[in-house]
Amino acid sequence: MAEFSTNDIDQMHHLYRINLINSCSGYKSANLIGTIDKQGVSNVAIFSSVTHLGSNPPLLGFFLRPTTVIRNTYDNIKATGIFTLNHIHEEILKEAHHTSAKYDHSISEFDVTDLEEDYIDGFEAPFVKGSPIQLAMRYVEEYPIKANNTILLIGKIEKLYVPNELLEKDGFINLSKGKVATINGMDGYAIPNIKMRLEYQRPKPEFVIPND
Amino acid sequence: MAEFSTNDIDQMHHLYRINLINSCSGYKSANLIGTIDKQGVSNVAIFSSVTHLGSNPPLLGFFLRPTTVIRNTYDNIKATGIFTLNHIHEEILKEAHHTSAKYDHSISEFDVTDLEEDYIDGFEAPFVKGSPIQLAMRYVEEYPIKANNTILLIGKIEKLYVPNELLEKDGFINLSKGKVATINGMDGYAIPNIKMRLEYQRPKPEFVIPND
Repeated sequence: MAEFSTNDIDQMHHLYRINLINSCSGYKSANLIGTIDKQGVSNVAIFSSVTHLGSNPPLLGFFLRPTTVIRNTYDNIKATGIFTLNHIHEEILKEAHHTSAKYDHSISEFDVTDLEEDYIDGFEAPFVKGSPIQLAMRYVEEYPIKANNTILLIGKIEKLYVPNELLEKDGFINLSKGKVATINGMDGYAIPNIKMRLEYQRPKPEFVIPND
Repeated sequence: MAEFSTNDIDQMHHLYRINLINSCSGYKSANLIGTIDKQGVSNVAIFSSVTHLGSNPPLLGFFLRPTTVIRNTYDNIKATGIFTLNHIHEEILKEAHHTSAKYDHSISEFDVTDLEEDYIDGFEAPFVKGSPIQLAMRYVEEYPIKANNTILLIGKIEKLYVPNELLEKDGFINLSKGKVATINGMDGYAIPNIKMRLEYQRPKPEFVIPND
């Protein structure tokens, strides 16, 4: 068994630390966030921190650093109030991963990769063509995180597109039927197969404390 | 293709909405959070929102509702300042899922399930025995989320335990070697196999704008 204390983590080589800490929280979502600036330059970038916040209202959040390439995504969302979320699937893994490279703001990742931008139903931010699940999102609010200068950005789902064959009768989207990816650490990718769905859980009767 | 607008989502049956919106963000992490109150009553609960916030300092965050069973986790963390994170793996899927049932605060989920509590290196919050990756966490800060009354709680890694066979030379933890689970929606579970690791990405030279 390997053990790492706070002190060990502080002292280790930064690349080792990035790999270790990025993979210690478990599997991550794999999304491409599409945005556009006021001049019409589009941007698409990979994010592994998109998280469900609540279904009513339908809110998702993600974390971003206020520096480097990710800044394009943030600046564009602040300028336009909108963005798209597009699930990364098996066919576009390598192209999606390449959007983590740092390009100048004037260059669209759609021009340097085989990813194709798609504009749907008049929504101004670009979707990623062929992505099995696509969401049109509107900016709601943000929280600057004091502990490490990241930003939590929260968006509301304005439109959700899902192929019928992924959608089950009770609203469950079967991600594995869409060959949706999940991320391990900075650079590990898997295409999971759903093993099982478990039932809604109620307490075991013998452990329920009766009301007086 | 199925399409859902904000209005459709607002109007749909709440169970359909919960399934749909919970599965539309992609795969989620699968963790058991262990806590203990001042009287020594332990608690363990399943969370699918644990997210990597940054590696230096090593921070993770998760979202919780200020009501229902999850309140025990929050109250205990506020009272003691500590909690544990334990990855859910193939062998304990059903027991882990059962911790979503609502038990009275006086009842420990360790007593009603086959999950076993484990106390390591004098850390006062309970770990889940046999979990392939275990983290001792200390409370850092929290953010009340106005948009839906959830709370983002941020903790710092104080100790990380990983079996040597999961740890690669560059610090990458191979989650699939630990048969770690990922969650689809409210109740879908998968045990992914890592398909590939991709390299660190640099811009393609022909798209680099030279410095003047």
